[in-house]
This record gives sequence, structure tokens and C-alpha cells, in this order.
Amino acid sequence: MSRADRFLKACRREPVDCTPVWMMRQAGRYLPEYREIRKKHTFLEMCKTPELAAEVTIQPIRRYEIDAAIIFADILLPLEPMGIGLEFAKGEGPVIHNPVRSLADVKKLKPVNTKESIGYLLKAIQAVLKELDGKVPLIGFTGAPFTLASYIIEGGSSKNYEHAKAMMFSEPKTWHALMEHLTHVIIDYLNAQIDTGVQAVQVFDSWVGALGTSDYREFVLPHQKKVLAGIKKTVPLIHFAHGATHLLEMVAEAGGDVIGLDWRCDLDAAWRRVGYEKAVQGNIDPITLFAQKEFIRKRVQEILDRAGGRNGHIMNLGHGILKETPVENAEIFINATHELSKR
Amino acid sequence: MSRADRFLKACRREPVDCTPVWMMRQAGRYLPEYREIRKKHTFLEMCKTPELAAEVTIQPIRRYEIDAAIIFADILLPLEPMGIGLEFAKGEGPVIHNPVRSLADVKKLKPVNTKESIGYLLKAIQAVLKELDGKVPLIGFTGAPFTLASYIIEGGSSKNYEHAKAMMFSEPKTWHALMEHLTHVIIDYLNAQIDTGVQAVQVFDSWVGALGTSDYREFVLPHQKKVLAGIKKTVPLIHFAHGATHLLEMVAEAGGDVIGLDWRCDLDAAWRRVGYEKAVQGNIDPITLFAQKEFIRKRVQEILDRAGGRNGHIMNLGHGILKETPVENAEIFINATHELSKR
Repeated sequence: MSRADRFLKACRREPVDCTPVWMMRQAGRYLPEYREIRKKHTFLEMCKTPELAAEVTIQPIRRYEIDAAIIFADILLPLEPMGIGLEFAKGEGPVIHNPVRSLADVKKLKPVNTKESIGYLLKAIQAVLKELDGKVPLIGFTGAPFTLASYIIEGGSSKNYEHAKAMMFSEPKTWHALMEHLTHVIIDYLNAQIDTGVQAVQVFDSWVGALGTSDYREFVLPHQKKVLAGIKKTVPLIHFAHGATHLLEMVAEAGGDVIGLDWRCDLDAAWRRVGYEKAVQGNIDPITLFAQKEFIRKRVQEILDRAGGRNGHIMNLGHGILKETPVENAEIFINATHELSKR
Repeated sequence: MSRADRFLKACRREPVDCTPVWMMRQAGRYLPEYREIRKKHTFLEMCKTPELAAEVTIQPIRRYEIDAAIIFADILLPLEPMGIGLEFAKGEGPVIHNPVRSLADVKKLKPVNTKESIGYLLKAIQAVLKELDGKVPLIGFTGAPFTLASYIIEGGSSKNYEHAKAMMFSEPKTWHALMEHLTHVIIDYLNAQIDTGVQAVQVFDSWVGALGTSDYREFVLPHQKKVLAGIKKTVPLIHFAHGATHLLEMVAEAGGDVIGLDWRCDLDAAWRRVGYEKAVQGNIDPITLFAQKEFIRKRVQEILDRAGGRNGHIMNLGHGILKETPVENAEIFINATHELSKR
């Protein structure tokens, strides 16, 4: 079995020769070859230039025996075509100049035709597919409605999500209208990636862990279900909600062939809660890769033990790889996964 | 029954006439009378001037029918006497100029005699007790070892706790030495407050939710147990770990007469996990107080329903009150708790 099959087979809970592994944010700042390119271009320039996006997507595939590529992009790319001004300010993360705060603001948002407005991403996907030539599968991705809504309402990153939650609690009609708009945008965005040829997709709900269970049930779950139901069933769908151990049953209920787990939960207990009819992905603490080789291997072994050799486990970090991660430690993690899980 | 008894009775799981309520960070920036004083003094000046600390401690007691006062202080006050330079930079939160990163750094830390070095806090407690004159009980508090260690190692607030976790994983001897030092400091710090007359104490583990379960078990639990066992048993002890729904059983195992719950968990399910031999405190989402009256009352009712009239529930927010909270909404929350829970 080769890198071409391992990941997709695990997504479908079929037997594999060893556990497949990839890393969230693997095309990123921890790689010197990425930083070389990033020096000369802004982050958005890199996203919008298919040759550059393709190049950084492939960098980790060249360097590591990793089992999947994930297209280099940002979950906020659909914002501009919706009519929302987006900027990546130095050291500050995304800044949104006209946050959405009222029903009138929501009504001004434009529908998005991905093939027309975000064609650069589809071109990057085509370029990657050509260069990979079937060697490893390519994952497309999107942000989930809550996570996109939180950026759009707060105007950027947030600590407490007070504007987003206040809208939920005080202007539920506005909230649901925004979530519905985002649902349409996201379905189109991800299906366009599938049409272009990605072999799997992941939906990132990065910030939904800030919600209590009743709020997730009332304000997120119905929309999340619609999004996941609207995505074409031709490729495996990974659903990852960060910081959401307390929401795990509902995350699984919302949908996805594979449920992504962050590092806070125990993989065995989490898989039981998710249900064995789904695959799981995760869940080593990204900071583990700051430690010595033997510690990294020990932690990999612990996660493999919790997976118990069951079909349908994809190894990953519990969140994106951090930029300070030593490149050689990412390699130790990847190789340890293959070696220690050999069937 | 009066404000003098309700909170302490609930801590001991005795019957009450209605559910007692207070708010974490209730002496703070959401109050105009606090901001009036804060304009003229730095945050640390306010902590170190007993008259000012006493005044802002009492402000919410004057304004609201709240059932407990909590001394105005900061969890980082014990840092300076340990020999760690601390500053509250404008808009940045705490900045620690000489973060602890090695065993040599840990060995340089000084033991702390609270009565000698942090006497200003004890004087503030005395002043509050005198003015309150038994009308409502006063809560003393401290940070937990993990939370203090994370500030001390990172040099301030952190998003990923990479230095703290890297020390755990790569230099466990250094980590445990630091946690042991902090354990002694914290026990002395809280017992000095008890000796001065506070009627209850709370241990805040604000950032421990960043840890997975095995890390909590190995690197935190033994120290947390020692801290909680070292605190005098003469007053009720509240143990609050924020963002730690996934750690709840171990948090309860570590100790505390009352377990604080953040807003992410369902109070009924959480109480079952904690065990009914302990009281619980919480757990309304602080952002609820940004909504309209009827919504706040509905959420209060939901939490009371989950508590089910069982002895041993103290109403609180699931985290500190936010500075943008409308003062009248805090009043709605407090009065709704009393009114809707009347036995």
C-alpha cells in the first residue's frame, strides 16, 4: 500500500498497512522553504497566486512521508466576494473593516459563485493535482458557518465572541439569516473544490468550542447539518470542531465521515462518543513536537494504543502545527506513526 | 435568611431560602464607580492600597443584592515577593520581565511569607470585614499552580502555552520543582487570608483547560491535590477550572467543597460527574448579560432547572463578568436568581 491509498482507505474505515498521518497547517510557517516564499509575498498574494499556493501545498509532501496534501488557502477567502473587506494586518491576524452587525448588513452580503470569484483557488488545486500525479491525495477545506460568522461579526479574531453571541441571544433572526447565507456560500465553495478534483474535504469549526451545549444545539447545529448534507458525497468529509470535547455527540450528529479530535480528549473515549460507524482523526497536542524524540514517540504510541488497531484512524495533530516547531520533530512524528502502527 | 448566611449554607449543601449568587470579577471595570477610581490609579496601586482595594470590593455589594463579596486582588500578587518582576502594561495584561525557563531560574525563586510581603492584601481584607460587618461573607482567592506557572514561564498571557508545555514535556524535573515552589507559596497565601478572616476561599485554575487529560493527571493533579489539602479546613473551598469540562472528574478528585463550572458544560450532567457530595457553582455564559431581560431570565431558569432544587448550588457566571456588561443587566441576573429560585 502506498501514500496514494492509505489516507482515503482510513477515511472509509478500510484496512490499511499502517496508520496514515498528515498535519493541520502543514503548509506553513514552520517550514524554512515556506518562509523563503512568504518573505517575498503577502499572505493573501500567496493564496491568490496559483503557482505559489501549489508550491507551498507540495512542500511538506516533498519533505515528509506524509499521507495527504491539503490545499494552501485560508478559511476567510470567501469573504471578499461576499463584499466583506479583508486584510491580514502584520502580527494581528485577519482584520475585517466592515463587520456585520445588523440584518441590513446581512442583506447586503452577496452570494458567491466560487468558480467565478475564487477561481484562483481552483487553479491552485488543478496545479497541485497535476504535480502530485496521484502520489498522495489532496484535501480541500472550508471554515464552518459559526467560525466564519464569528470573524465576520467580531471584525477579526476574538477572545470572548461577545458580538457574535450577543447577536445570537438578542437578534436571533439576524444570526440565522447570516448563518443561512454562509451555508450557501460554504456549500458552493467546497463543492467547487470537489468538482475540481480534491479527493477529500475538511470543514474546520475552529472557534465553536466557545459555545455551551444549548447554544450549539439552537444556533449552530441546524446550519451545520445543512452544510454537511449539501456537500457532494463523492469524497470523504472530515468534520473538525476545535475545543469542543463537550459538544462531541452533536458534532458527530451534524455529520461527517471522519470526526476530527483536538488533543484535549482521550481518543478512545471520544471515538466511543462519536460512534464507531465514523472514522476519527487526531489527536496529538501540537506542543508535543517541541519535545525530544523519545517523548514524541511515546505520545504517538499512546494514541495508537487508544485507537486500538481499529480501522478508521487517521493520525494528526489536535490543532494546526505551530510556526516554532522544529522541522525534524515533525518528521519524527510522521515516521513514528508509520513505524509504530505497522500491521 | 439573609445575605449573611445563604452563600455559606449553599457551600455546605444546607437548605437555603433561595439560590445565592455572586459574580466572578464582580469588583471590576463594568462598574462606573470602579472606573472612577481606576482613572486615578494604576491597577497594581489599587491592589496595594488597602482603602482602595476595600472600596472596590464593597462597590458591588452596595449596588446589588449579591450574596458574597470577593476581595479585590490579582492572582499574580505573590509573584513580586518570589522575585519575579511584574507589570500591567496598558491594554496588554500582565508582563513578566524575567520568565522562568530553567531549573536555575526556579532555584532562584524566593519563598513567600504572605504576612510580611503581601500584608497590604490582609489589611484590605480587614477593612472589608469591618465595613461589611457580617452583612455578607467575604471570599479570599488565589491562582492555582498551573495557572501561575503558565504566566511565569510564558512571561504573560499565552495562546498556546508552548513554553509551559515544552517544559513539562522536556524538562519535567524543572516543571515539578516550579510547581512545588508554587504549592508552598499558594498555601501560605490562602491560609493567611483565612487567618485574617475571609469566610470562604476560591482557587482559580483559569488556563488549565489547555491541557489534555494525561497531562493534567501527570503534571498538575498531584500538585493541585497538595495545594487543596494544605488549605485550612475552617472555611469552604471553591475549586474552579475554566475550560476544563474534559477534566471535570479529576478537578473534583483534586479537591474542593464546591466545584466551579464554566458555561460550556450542562450543570446537571456536570454535577453528576463531580458527585453530589460536593456543591457546584455556576454557570451562566457571561455574554448572556449582553442580552435582553427576558432572555437573561430564561437562561437563569434553565440553570435553576438543571440544579433541580438540590441543596448546594451557588449561581454564578461561567467566567469573569466582562467590562462591557450593562450594569442593569447584572442586576437582572442577580434578582432573577433570587426570585426564580425562591423555595
